[in-house]
Amino acid sequence: MTAIEICDVGPRDGLQNEPEVLAPELRAALANRLALTGVARVEAASFVRDELVPQMAGAEQVAAALEARDGVIFAGLVLNRHGYERLRATALAEVHATFAASETFQRRNGGSSVAEGLARTAAVIAAAHADGRRATVTISTAFGCPFEGRADPMQVLDLVARCAAADADEVVLADTIGIAVPTEVRRAVERARTTRLPVGVHLHDTRNTAVACALAAVEAGATLVDASVGGIGGCPFAPRSTGNVATEDVVYALEREGVQTGVDLDALIRVAEWLERTLAHPLPGKVYRAGSRP
Amino acid sequence: MTAIEICDVGPRDGLQNEPEVLAPELRAALANRLALTGVARVEAASFVRDELVPQMAGAEQVAAALEARDGVIFAGLVLNRHGYERLRATALAEVHATFAASETFQRRNGGSSVAEGLARTAAVIAAAHADGRRATVTISTAFGCPFEGRADPMQVLDLVARCAAADADEVVLADTIGIAVPTEVRRAVERARTTRLPVGVHLHDTRNTAVACALAAVEAGATLVDASVGGIGGCPFAPRSTGNVATEDVVYALEREGVQTGVDLDALIRVAEWLERTLAHPLPGKVYRAGSRP
Repeated sequence: MTAIEICDVGPRDGLQNEPEVLAPELRAALANRLALTGVARVEAASFVRDELVPQMAGAEQVAAALEARDGVIFAGLVLNRHGYERLRATALAEVHATFAASETFQRRNGGSSVAEGLARTAAVIAAAHADGRRATVTISTAFGCPFEGRADPMQVLDLVARCAAADADEVVLADTIGIAVPTEVRRAVERARTTRLPVGVHLHDTRNTAVACALAAVEAGATLVDASVGGIGGCPFAPRSTGNVATEDVVYALEREGVQTGVDLDALIRVAEWLERTLAHPLPGKVYRAGSRP
Repeated sequence: MTAIEICDVGPRDGLQNEPEVLAPELRAALANRLALTGVARVEAASFVRDELVPQMAGAEQVAAALEARDGVIFAGLVLNRHGYERLRATALAEVHATFAASETFQRRNGGSSVAEGLARTAAVIAAAHADGRRATVTISTAFGCPFEGRADPMQVLDLVARCAAADADEVVLADTIGIAVPTEVRRAVERARTTRLPVGVHLHDTRNTAVACALAAVEAGATLVDASVGGIGGCPFAPRSTGNVATEDVVYALEREGVQTGVDLDALIRVAEWLERTLAHPLPGKVYRAGSRP
């Protein structure tokens, strides 16, 4: 039986895109609740400039309020060495660095070229390793970008190879705009695995393909799936919902297909219910509303 | 390249579950708009008792307002010979008969045993054929039921064989409660095809598995996929959303995977946008909100 890891990115990629700003204590409470459900990892904080992303302000306070738990890794997102220096002062065991495959997207979101984003990532990896931390690299817009359209699979493979050369511990292919279909994801994972790096996927359910893509990724040998409890990060009432796929929805499909995630689905559904009450609006996820059984 | 047929059930299974009752003229307008998008079939009306399902009252008026179009079949749902007699007086070319695989569900929803539901269906098929009409049979709760849990695959196969023996032109396996995962659907379609009947699937996206299941069904040789424009039939604001999968979402995934549906996706998205304005609330579908391209 296949076994994979789930990384819940709700406290970071989810809450980052919520209109309401939650206090660091509440974001840590979400991460701590998730850690009790059996997910392997929780992306708990983002070390970016507070004025740029007020939803993520106070990352150090979030990190300080996390309750260590055997078998669960708390990770933080950083974009550069400066962010890493902030993370270094915390107990977070894993660094998630990221850059985009698309020049336009990287320019607008990362303020640099793709090459510079890769160089910053390499510097973060080196610093993390010097401190004994694992470094996962997420390549965003790995399937398409709002500005440049479809991604070039060979360019993405080249970037994966450069991450491997920079000694990343793992690479995650992100469908940032939710454009991918399963065959594309299957091939991208297969190609990325030729670098011998462990490969993960980060899927947005913008066009209702994320569960199918997650299943295809795992079939192709992906060992990590990012997802966001309740599917937060894209509001169902927004004109163009762009949310992360809901963790419960991914876990339901994977477990029913015989893939072990280690997650207690009913416990996870209770976290989504708590989060719905906390955010005071329905979340985009489906399984937490329908329940795990007939 | 694989080619399959899409049957949009929005004017029937979709509107039947909307709180607002639309006038027959408006239901026919929806069906006529759908017929212009390239879908092979539209389930346009339901010949059930008006007092039981007020959303479907005036089926004859709906049928009379349909505009015949080459390459598009308008179908009507009937549950028994009485319903068929009403349909017989219309120009509808195809009959959709249905019964449940679950005794409890069939008792509650059809007021009979499964055996009696099958017998009624056989009578409808015979009457339809005597009039030169095609008859498709949908087996509801073919994967699971709210009262009896998971369906028994061998019992479902037996029911498919009985439909074949009753001379059905096609059988549709319905995941009425949206519980199925792709491997189950693949196997169920493969088993049903051993009867040599053309096989379709009718999927609800209750647990976010419907797109993955539709892809698996088509891989397994299904030649028909039911879906509902905009995903109507399950409100995103209801505590337990049970909607049909959105036709646009299915068409997006199938076409991107190289399966020809004959549907103009952008035209279909415009119908969903019109329907959203008509119903005055957001619809559960995702592709119509996100658009078909980056």
